[in-house]
Amino acid sequence: MKKLVIAYSGGLDTSYCAVSLSKEYQVHAVSVNTGGFTESEINTIKKNAYKMGVSTYKNIDAISTFYQKVIKYLVFGNVLKNNTYPLSVSAERIIQAIEIIEYAKKIGASYIAHGSTGAGNDQVRFDMIFQTLAPNIKIITPIRDQKLTRQEEIDYLKSEGIHMSWEKAQYSINKGLWGTSVGGSETLTSTMPLPEDAYPSQIEKEGIQKLVLTFNKGELVAVNGKLDTPEKCIENLNNIASKYGIGRDIHVGDTIIGIKGRVGFEAAAALITIKAHHLLEKHTLTKWQMQHKEYLASFYGMHLHEGQYLDPVMRNIEAFLESSQQKVTGSVFATLRPYTFALDGISSSNDLMSAKFGSYGEENKGWTAEEAKGFIKILGNQNKIYQQVNNK
Amino acid sequence: MKKLVIAYSGGLDTSYCAVSLSKEYQVHAVSVNTGGFTESEINTIKKNAYKMGVSTYKNIDAISTFYQKVIKYLVFGNVLKNNTYPLSVSAERIIQAIEIIEYAKKIGASYIAHGSTGAGNDQVRFDMIFQTLAPNIKIITPIRDQKLTRQEEIDYLKSEGIHMSWEKAQYSINKGLWGTSVGGSETLTSTMPLPEDAYPSQIEKEGIQKLVLTFNKGELVAVNGKLDTPEKCIENLNNIASKYGIGRDIHVGDTIIGIKGRVGFEAAAALITIKAHHLLEKHTLTKWQMQHKEYLASFYGMHLHEGQYLDPVMRNIEAFLESSQQKVTGSVFATLRPYTFALDGISSSNDLMSAKFGSYGEENKGWTAEEAKGFIKILGNQNKIYQQVNNK
Amino acid sequence: MKKLVIAYSGGLDTSYCAVSLSKEYQVHAVSVNTGGFTESEINTIKKNAYKMGVSTYKNIDAISTFYQKVIKYLVFGNVLKNNTYPLSVSAERIIQAIEIIEYAKKIGASYIAHGSTGAGNDQVRFDMIFQTLAPNIKIITPIRDQKLTRQEEIDYLKSEGIHMSWEKAQYSINKGLWGTSVGGSETLTSTMPLPEDAYPSQIEKEGIQKLVLTFNKGELVAVNGKLDTPEKCIENLNNIASKYGIGRDIHVGDTIIGIKGRVGFEAAAALITIKAHHLLEKHTLTKWQMQHKEYLASFYGMHLHEGQYLDPVMRNIEAFLESSQQKVTGSVFATLRPYTFALDGISSSNDLMSAKFGSYGEENKGWTAEEAKGFIKILGNQNKIYQQVNNK
Amino acid sequence: MKKLVIAYSGGLDTSYCAVSLSKEYQVHAVSVNTGGFTESEINTIKKNAYKMGVSTYKNIDAISTFYQKVIKYLVFGNVLKNNTYPLSVSAERIIQAIEIIEYAKKIGASYIAHGSTGAGNDQVRFDMIFQTLAPNIKIITPIRDQKLTRQEEIDYLKSEGIHMSWEKAQYSINKGLWGTSVGGSETLTSTMPLPEDAYPSQIEKEGIQKLVLTFNKGELVAVNGKLDTPEKCIENLNNIASKYGIGRDIHVGDTIIGIKGRVGFEAAAALITIKAHHLLEKHTLTKWQMQHKEYLASFYGMHLHEGQYLDPVMRNIEAFLESSQQKVTGSVFATLRPYTFALDGISSSNDLMSAKFGSYGEENKGWTAEEAKGFIKILGNQNKIYQQVNNK
Repeated sequence: MKKLVIAYSGGLDTSYCAVSLSKEYQVHAVSVNTGGFTESEINTIKKNAYKMGVSTYKNIDAISTFYQKVIKYLVFGNVLKNNTYPLSVSAERIIQAIEIIEYAKKIGASYIAHGSTGAGNDQVRFDMIFQTLAPNIKIITPIRDQKLTRQEEIDYLKSEGIHMSWEKAQYSINKGLWGTSVGGSETLTSTMPLPEDAYPSQIEKEGIQKLVLTFNKGELVAVNGKLDTPEKCIENLNNIASKYGIGRDIHVGDTIIGIKGRVGFEAAAALITIKAHHLLEKHTLTKWQMQHKEYLASFYGMHLHEGQYLDPVMRNIEAFLESSQQKVTGSVFATLRPYTFALDGISSSNDLMSAKFGSYGEENKGWTAEEAKGFIKILGNQNKIYQQVNNK
Repeated sequence: MKKLVIAYSGGLDTSYCAVSLSKEYQVHAVSVNTGGFTESEINTIKKNAYKMGVSTYKNIDAISTFYQKVIKYLVFGNVLKNNTYPLSVSAERIIQAIEIIEYAKKIGASYIAHGSTGAGNDQVRFDMIFQTLAPNIKIITPIRDQKLTRQEEIDYLKSEGIHMSWEKAQYSINKGLWGTSVGGSETLTSTMPLPEDAYPSQIEKEGIQKLVLTFNKGELVAVNGKLDTPEKCIENLNNIASKYGIGRDIHVGDTIIGIKGRVGFEAAAALITIKAHHLLEKHTLTKWQMQHKEYLASFYGMHLHEGQYLDPVMRNIEAFLESSQQKVTGSVFATLRPYTFALDGISSSNDLMSAKFGSYGEENKGWTAEEAKGFIKILGNQNKIYQQVNNK
Repeated sequence: MKKLVIAYSGGLDTSYCAVSLSKEYQVHAVSVNTGGFTESEINTIKKNAYKMGVSTYKNIDAISTFYQKVIKYLVFGNVLKNNTYPLSVSAERIIQAIEIIEYAKKIGASYIAHGSTGAGNDQVRFDMIFQTLAPNIKIITPIRDQKLTRQEEIDYLKSEGIHMSWEKAQYSINKGLWGTSVGGSETLTSTMPLPEDAYPSQIEKEGIQKLVLTFNKGELVAVNGKLDTPEKCIENLNNIASKYGIGRDIHVGDTIIGIKGRVGFEAAAALITIKAHHLLEKHTLTKWQMQHKEYLASFYGMHLHEGQYLDPVMRNIEAFLESSQQKVTGSVFATLRPYTFALDGISSSNDLMSAKFGSYGEENKGWTAEEAKGFIKILGNQNKIYQQVNNK
Repeated sequence: MKKLVIAYSGGLDTSYCAVSLSKEYQVHAVSVNTGGFTESEINTIKKNAYKMGVSTYKNIDAISTFYQKVIKYLVFGNVLKNNTYPLSVSAERIIQAIEIIEYAKKIGASYIAHGSTGAGNDQVRFDMIFQTLAPNIKIITPIRDQKLTRQEEIDYLKSEGIHMSWEKAQYSINKGLWGTSVGGSETLTSTMPLPEDAYPSQIEKEGIQKLVLTFNKGELVAVNGKLDTPEKCIENLNNIASKYGIGRDIHVGDTIIGIKGRVGFEAAAALITIKAHHLLEKHTLTKWQMQHKEYLASFYGMHLHEGQYLDPVMRNIEAFLESSQQKVTGSVFATLRPYTFALDGISSSNDLMSAKFGSYGEENKGWTAEEAKGFIKILGNQNKIYQQVNNK
């Protein structure tokens, strides 16, 4: 029988796929955990997968891979798409696609199925990564091809003896280490915000809370002095900050297919980590490091978002970013409040802002008035010449 | 007697300059209002100027000029230096320098004086603009040259019969239409935030307040439906939002003279205007308009900050920015809260996010599954070829 | 009968289309002259078009439009794709597509046909511009859809009573105002150059010839002092320089569909105009004008090449480029030689290189040794601080 | 006695410095060979140095260092300043400055002297690198400070018993591995080219000569199949190609001090190496690798030119460039002619232009007409929506 791997989430669409494809293929279901699933949720998915008639089910723990291959560089680059969105879902999909196709190659499958529709970004990310890494594995997409209604899918599953409750949640939620996306009827409009209760985390804390985030060469290595792996620090930070309703916003941007899309998200840890990291860079990098990092990281985020993670230019940008982080070491002090946070300051032995070299606006120690005048005179040379030549 | 124009603020430094320069020059004091002075403050400055022995005093109202020549483009470009600072003071200084040197040329002065020290950015901005626009007017900078202590200056003024109270404020404040800067002992460190009461506006409101900001071709033309000039809208918005403590932060960045500097600011109107404008752009501009605007505006902000406003490249960037704003028209809905604000959505007849063309993630109307597959297949061509050629 | 406009070149493919589409549609043939056709060639095309059974034939003279809408900006931006190719054909196609679809709208056609295959860039340029400017006009592409061999097309034409000679030229040539492309068996390889005789212009001159090119605000307005429209100057320049075999090269680059393509070209006027214009800019623009022009123009060329001319970002870049040309006025002196040319120098009243302001490497007049030292000291501040902080 | 290191070239200026400084300091002369000196020239310099009364003389062979630290990256980045100049001299000065200051530190000198004037770029490069790498070593610049005429220097040397011929050459020549610069009375004008005989290499060959250049990961490793170190390959290539008068041009650009400068050069090996390398990249890199390399390399060249080699952003860009060269391996075929050369083609096992994936403009094998149509339809989505929303 023909071997097929299916990206299985346990939802209605992939359940329909699993059941219907099992008629023709030997189906191997796989889900990839990028920080969204608890142990017990995985067990439920597993149990359900077998109900759908799959031959095997496997959950791949890719949290650490997700951090090492993508999140790390998003932090190095302070990447917020359109200055807002930490690319929570876009980044996950890349890793999920890579893990799934590698699994398919490993078990010798000739077919791979996913449940994306023909309307969104995910089909592009999955198809492109599958085709690039395994040009000989054929891609099967029943949902995109058959365009069934939810009711038709439910009826089919019933007819196959699968009697489960498939109520549609009011908000579609996608949870992962780097943030949770929230879609609903409001995000299909341009005008309406999400209601408070659409967000998975509710505000549980009042007043303020102080935090210390410690970075080593650009990576988050401790929260409040507690050393851990970056991925654990992120998880920990998320637990602390999401209780303040921090990191919520709505992303509006260009999809890969050219239409504008809108999606809500909450990503407390991602927002705080990026902003804290950025502040530390302002103290430890030179002006042109900041300038070029910004340019490259903006493209990196856009290209990643559009599923082009395998373009070798991404490896080149990562080399730049990694190289830029050698001195981004130190601690950042933050204050959390309901809905928002402030960065109070930093401490770093690589801090370039040192009174030793002169304080801004204060009496300087590094140069004389005459030297400053010489500097200014020559710095202004070109524009002075331009004015004299052209405005005579 | 030699005619000299002095940029006069009424503080200790420029008072010292006015008195001592009056010995040798016919001194014409001038101050430029870029939104920081009330009528009564101007009267006080005027009265004091004459006490210092100046021949004439003039206050130039440059609020509208400030908006037209600089703020407008900072909004078009969503300019926040280092992703934080609206360039409140940097932007003002440029306009002040231009207005003062034009005044000096108009009244036929051969000398121009300012009170900047040799340690900061302002001397660079003033000197370069003066030298460029009037290469024949000689620049006099007693504070930079003489390096007197405050006490020496006070003693000198006393000896000249000027008995005023020159207590140093705990925080040095610079107020203008595009924001207020706050310097103090904390901003000379890397670690400490400003205390709440260092900020000129204190939080007076609780709960939330809804706002509607209306833009026409990128310019703010109404707040809550009340049409006015952009500069009046900004002032109005500032009055509303500063009562929530919105727009406070600390900017850390590179000074023109190569050291790192840190300065607190509050700029409620600037922050809300820029973020609202940016959101409207996300709905009305194409992906590449967004991308290139970001690149150019980041440079525009840096170059402005560094006093290079007269470089003709600034006019070229302004032409780009202006051209990009033709469709940036519509309303933005915001919610104010203590310390923060959220953008709820927008309404625009130029909104490119229209259900007519397909909704993100929903069943699309614009193309078929087969068309999507063709798109993805060819979009991925280059990386597929790259992998096949190089990883065989 | 259904009205259809066909982009008609007189070659085998579009002749086949004209004949076969005439069975079902009222066919209106149109060709667009962007500098490639003589009067007599147009007459031949016209005569043949009627032989193919079309209802009407029209030749649109778009030489001036081509210059005004595209070439002008390619000169302003010194655009050479991959630092080599003046985009001769890519640029033409855009104008041809726009002219044809506007014609179709004007005469009320509901269908539009072109003869592109499914393998190249032209189909993308035609389809995208047609779909954008006239979403309701249906596109018909028999060559792309039917994949006939040349012999099948010839047989069909014979069966329809069309007996013409359709010998395939050894090299496919596309001629226009901005250059001539040359494709042949060699350009399908990576290793082989085109033989000399594949190029349409053969070397007829020896020794050297001096030239003066005069620009006004970035536009070529005279060759050797003879004032004319820019498009006539380009034509004139081409007649002079092509006799030296100047401007030949092979372009290798990315097609819109992701594969690499290779095409020979000769474009004497384009190459000389761009290089002369660039030299004049080096004398008249500031450093940052040069820097940002290069960045934007590189994207402009890429986006144009990829058929994205209608993206509004192109208008924004054009605004920047136009604004940058205000002072690019003067004459450039060149020397032509077989296969190559040299630029000897320029003369411009906007020349920023003036001995008045100091000569490079010579004793300066504009500043003292002490001022230079002050400049250097402060210019080096940041890197000095960086080294001291980090390498202790 | 106070220990001083002097950058000694053997010319009049540094001879004057050596003699006069020997009165007060223990002078250690050093020259750095970056490819400009023969063995016998070095011996002459050495002999003369001792005549000037220096305590020691040392020649540092930095050819290999020059290649490894700078030229390598200029090739990776295809760096031609203002699209013309390979930065021959600018690049040398950086390495010379670093080698000299490291030598001064090694021998424990407290003073360092160079012979630059106050008018050019070299003083900036030397001072900044010296100050950054050795903030405690004091810089001495007699030529900049004393502004003597040539005659005054000659008279002084005579008075000290140094009777040598100090005729000023008509053209000032600076020779190095990456090219030779030529300055003369013509380069002080904007209009005049250098005469043929001002160039050090004269045309000795007619007709054509074929060349094969082989690159490994972006580095030139063989000329005509002869394997050698990159620096030897460059030297070898220069010997071959300079006989054709290839690589001559005049660079016009911005100096660090804001004025425009003009300098002739010949750099046959640099030009051919860069153009050949660039062509190989067009075949082996992806579109976005090309695009971002160009942007970063342009800045790299500018920053290097301006003496900012020690800015850590340069190391970050080098990391990007190095990472981009992994597949830039293969051979490039060139044809040399008097005054010019052509690139005929390439051969590489990493060539992305492979008929296997479809040939440009030919019948494709990789996708169907329907897939192409789907691709185009969706690729054009955004501009179509933009037009429909805005031009109704």
